[in-house]
Amino acid sequence: VEEFERIASLQARLQASIVTQPPREASQTPLVKVGIGDDAAVFTTDPETDSLVTTDSMVEGIHFLPETLSWYDVGYKCLAASISDIAAMGGQPTVAVMALAVPKDLPMAALEAMYDGIGTLAARFGCQVAGGDLVGTNGPVVITSTVFGSVPKGSALLRSGARCGDILFVTGALGGSAAGLELLTGGGVLPDDERAVLQGLHQRPLPQITAGQILRECGASSCNDISDGLASECNEIAHASGVRLRIEKSRIPMPPAAVNLARWQRKDAVAYALYGGEDYQLTGTAAPLAFAAALARCESVGIRLTAIGRVESGDGVVSEAPDGHLEVVEPKGYNHFS
Amino acid sequence: VEEFERIASLQARLQASIVTQPPREASQTPLVKVGIGDDAAVFTTDPETDSLVTTDSMVEGIHFLPETLSWYDVGYKCLAASISDIAAMGGQPTVAVMALAVPKDLPMAALEAMYDGIGTLAARFGCQVAGGDLVGTNGPVVITSTVFGSVPKGSALLRSGARCGDILFVTGALGGSAAGLELLTGGGVLPDDERAVLQGLHQRPLPQITAGQILRECGASSCNDISDGLASECNEIAHASGVRLRIEKSRIPMPPAAVNLARWQRKDAVAYALYGGEDYQLTGTAAPLAFAAALARCESVGIRLTAIGRVESGDGVVSEAPDGHLEVVEPKGYNHFS
Repeated sequence: VEEFERIASLQARLQASIVTQPPREASQTPLVKVGIGDDAAVFTTDPETDSLVTTDSMVEGIHFLPETLSWYDVGYKCLAASISDIAAMGGQPTVAVMALAVPKDLPMAALEAMYDGIGTLAARFGCQVAGGDLVGTNGPVVITSTVFGSVPKGSALLRSGARCGDILFVTGALGGSAAGLELLTGGGVLPDDERAVLQGLHQRPLPQITAGQILRECGASSCNDISDGLASECNEIAHASGVRLRIEKSRIPMPPAAVNLARWQRKDAVAYALYGGEDYQLTGTAAPLAFAAALARCESVGIRLTAIGRVESGDGVVSEAPDGHLEVVEPKGYNHFS
Repeated sequence: VEEFERIASLQARLQASIVTQPPREASQTPLVKVGIGDDAAVFTTDPETDSLVTTDSMVEGIHFLPETLSWYDVGYKCLAASISDIAAMGGQPTVAVMALAVPKDLPMAALEAMYDGIGTLAARFGCQVAGGDLVGTNGPVVITSTVFGSVPKGSALLRSGARCGDILFVTGALGGSAAGLELLTGGGVLPDDERAVLQGLHQRPLPQITAGQILRECGASSCNDISDGLASECNEIAHASGVRLRIEKSRIPMPPAAVNLARWQRKDAVAYALYGGEDYQLTGTAAPLAFAAALARCESVGIRLTAIGRVESGDGVVSEAPDGHLEVVEPKGYNHFS
């Protein structure tokens, strides 16, 4: 939330400077249709396709520690965050560039491992790594991915399309990444196989490109990827769409191993899903018929799509407590290691 | 050079992984025509236009210090580095995204100043800032700009087109940025007006978009922007084109104030131009008739274009010493504060 407010205020400044200063050397200006404030920016220079662009940075000590991610995972996960933003728009990632700031004494093997993680994920989605920048730093490693994508013109899934009566859905299962992080930082004990599942969900989340494209083709009304936790993402949709989202917490799908860890830790398992972040699944809304069509297509390709609530008039995100009272689901974000 | 070798080795790794892993979810793959190793990557999805993309990071303590750049300059200069890469391809910048890693205690005014510097430069070139990412760090500020651009299909100026008999040229005057940096870090004394000129060249270099477009339209055979010093950029052209470049050092245009500073510092002024870097002017090659056409068009819009040598068979970069012997101009790069 704080990040969003800062960016919104800075973006207002940029818009002002764009408006007040006439371009002196511009020969061709693309139309930015959707700027800061959605998962990716949408712009157009071509009559049939909208272009998407998104950028994500990860910082050593803030977003990862040696015990939570290998260097391979660092490269993989930074690119995954950007590809996931393209997924949330229903797009296809096409080209990526990577920028790395690394200490001079970082072993070449660490750099190679990061690039292997990047290359493996990029290849999986047919996204080409077109270039990069590599600079020295006296501080922690900072890795930045920028991914370019495309969608058929006018069809990008935004956060702002949710309408009363729509179904609220999520793809996959949520909370695995947060549970995996808890295990990796020394919290809790689980059998090895369950531990491996949760750590894998934290270290190598899979962006939901196919799900996003199905949702777009079936006419979903809004979509967001789950980078900061379901509570935060749903609040963004509610705010952008001017509606209220009602979540039925008991319907949120979670990996069984995360539920086991919560029991061991004497925590409420659903907190991993609501406030954990970095699952890189999708959440969004669709009218009932569009949802049914998407559900059928997702089932046919092995993607789990689950209705977890509905869209109402009002604002914010609410959930019904066991006693029947409504409680507000605050947009608490993911607080890395800070 | 070290950076180039590391990137080349890492890029080879990425190419290998792209070839060996079939894309599982790819529906549309753009052709990357020119990848890592030129100023910007060139790719195509559209029948009439080639797309360009480039990314540049700047790190506090490595690329700038509080006494060398204001926060406004930091934003301006990071974006300028990327726009300059687009200029070197003869392109038009269209969309930019910025990623910032900043300490939690960085004042909001510093962030606003960075964005003002970004916004002012972007507006000047009709480039829209479409989005960004803002994350925390426990280390120095790291700012990354990624700029997209376009050129008519197949017309991007590469480093690899220099041919024997071509003229070697530069735009503007060189060495001002390095001389300005020397003044800013306490080296030498100059009258206030000369000092202001040189510091301005270091803090707010102007990317040469119009010059790049003229050079492309007139059929220049190669081009490179001067980010690491003329010696380094000319060696890149020589290497990529398989030719030798012969520089006549006495013809390299320099700001008079830089020549004055060199006299005061008892240095060879041309070293600022050859090894100083960050002038963000262009160097390249053109057949004589193409050069004459570009010269006429540059003169008509107030851009200085100067022949400083020629292209010969062989390799590397050489210069004729006063005694008539040839000396090799080594690709010594720019060594920031490290």
